[in-house]
Amino acid sequence: MPDSELSRIGVAIAADLLEKFDSLIEKRGYTNRSEAFRDLIRAELVRETSSHPSGRVVGSLTLVYDHHVRLLEEKLTQLQHDHDRLIVSVLHVHLNHDNCMELIALRGPSAEVRRFADSLTSIKGVKHAQLAITAGGDTL
Amino acid sequence: MPDSELSRIGVAIAADLLEKFDSLIEKRGYTNRSEAFRDLIRAELVRETSSHPSGRVVGSLTLVYDHHVRLLEEKLTQLQHDHDRLIVSVLHVHLNHDNCMELIALRGPSAEVRRFADSLTSIKGVKHAQLAITAGGDTL
Amino acid sequence: MPDSELSRIGVAIAADLLEKFDSLIEKRGYTNRSEAFRDLIRAELVRETSSHPSGRVVGSLTLVYDHHVRLLEEKLTQLQHDHDRLIVSVLHVHLNHDNCMELIALRGPSAEVRRFADSLTSIKGVKHAQLAITAGGDTL
Amino acid sequence: MPDSELSRIGVAIAADLLEKFDSLIEKRGYTNRSEAFRDLIRAELVRETSSHPSGRVVGSLTLVYDHHVRLLEEKLTQLQHDHDRLIVSVLHVHLNHDNCMELIALRGPSAEVRRFADSLTSIKGVKHAQLAITAGGDTL
Repeated sequence: MPDSELSRIGVAIAADLLEKFDSLIEKRGYTNRSEAFRDLIRAELVRETSSHPSGRVVGSLTLVYDHHVRLLEEKLTQLQHDHDRLIVSVLHVHLNHDNCMELIALRGPSAEVRRFADSLTSIKGVKHAQLAITAGGDTL
Repeated sequence: MPDSELSRIGVAIAADLLEKFDSLIEKRGYTNRSEAFRDLIRAELVRETSSHPSGRVVGSLTLVYDHHVRLLEEKLTQLQHDHDRLIVSVLHVHLNHDNCMELIALRGPSAEVRRFADSLTSIKGVKHAQLAITAGGDTL
Repeated sequence: MPDSELSRIGVAIAADLLEKFDSLIEKRGYTNRSEAFRDLIRAELVRETSSHPSGRVVGSLTLVYDHHVRLLEEKLTQLQHDHDRLIVSVLHVHLNHDNCMELIALRGPSAEVRRFADSLTSIKGVKHAQLAITAGGDTL
Repeated sequence: MPDSELSRIGVAIAADLLEKFDSLIEKRGYTNRSEAFRDLIRAELVRETSSHPSGRVVGSLTLVYDHHVRLLEEKLTQLQHDHDRLIVSVLHVHLNHDNCMELIALRGPSAEVRRFADSLTSIKGVKHAQLAITAGGDTL
């Protein structure tokens, strides 16, 4: 974040462990070791925040559904409107003849976001769903 | 899927286990027990498909990044164009003054999708990323 | 459980989805489809129970540590005695010249079990730890 | 590891991110920030190793089963003897009147360890199982 000062800290680490870490992050495309450390830290903070029901998170729900199922789209639309304060926006993808994918950008308290995701997942015709929690607005 | 016949199978299950399952799925919003079983099956099939490097998957990558970081948006755009056959489309969200969220709909072989996700995640300024694998086109 | 009556329920499922499920469970060694369904149900119930802080769980903590680290074994022993009502028993394995593995069988409220696992994981010399939650006594 | 030299590296990190990390690790019981970094690194290396089928891992399988089920214990014993080179040792716990828990310490190639875990999990009477991969002998 541009508003925060940069600290420079020292980390003691066995040479062989460091070597393995360096080769892992190189494989993943990192050109900067500090950036890899910061990503590890942020991922851990996100896991922590999202484990608290009231922790504020942002994330996405990815749904695959069969649009032929009667009344499915009406139900999805209705439920989304009933929870519009959790939904930022939606991307719709036509996967193939039968299946649609919807990516729903979400923001709100962890427990509410999860409950809403459950309620969409359980609708008949929704074949699979994955919730990805990325962060609370002030975690990252 | 509309093209497939429906089978009706019998499942033997202890009465008290069934009772607990029924109360769990009711809480999650299911009105139909068969639908809950089908969702469990599909989730297991997706886990299996996505564990094979060449298994074809669809899914999404959710990125949070700080758009103030110099050249970040150029790098993200460049990488995405270099892998355009993996990308179906992209939804961009302005989270707050500093942070953007991007939901990238992906489709392709499991290993390539993961590698591409790693390469975006490792860019300086990308603060957090979560890959959600939903399915291969023919799994669901 | 021997005390519970067996119910026989019908599940409607598309023929091609059933076929994929049958081939997955055959690969995993199941000889009985009902048993595979029961395992899916129980796994889902365990995930649910363990997400509640007060849900009673059983499970195991697997630790790898370097026994050369000064005072490490004293600290591990002390902490384990301080939480003896969470610990059922312990299996110790000599992995190689430097490393030990300890499998600690645990039982108690989900949040306490996790907190105890954190406190062991954070000790200097403990190189890695994995908590596996299997069930609450009355979930399975 | 005592045989490896200690490196001291510098990590640049925004002050507010560092503050959040420090408060998280304090909560988890760390008294030393370098140790928390090393644990994050090792956990990431273990995830990487265990995703390769031939990566050598150590870990544990935690099983809960109903010992009343006919021939179950014979089957578990038989399967374990058929894979004795994967098994280091076993801890058995009597959970309650019906249920036993078994913690099986495992060592071997990732794919074989997983396949063996599947084969135990799929036996009728085994109610739940969780595989915890901790590390390959040379990862930590």
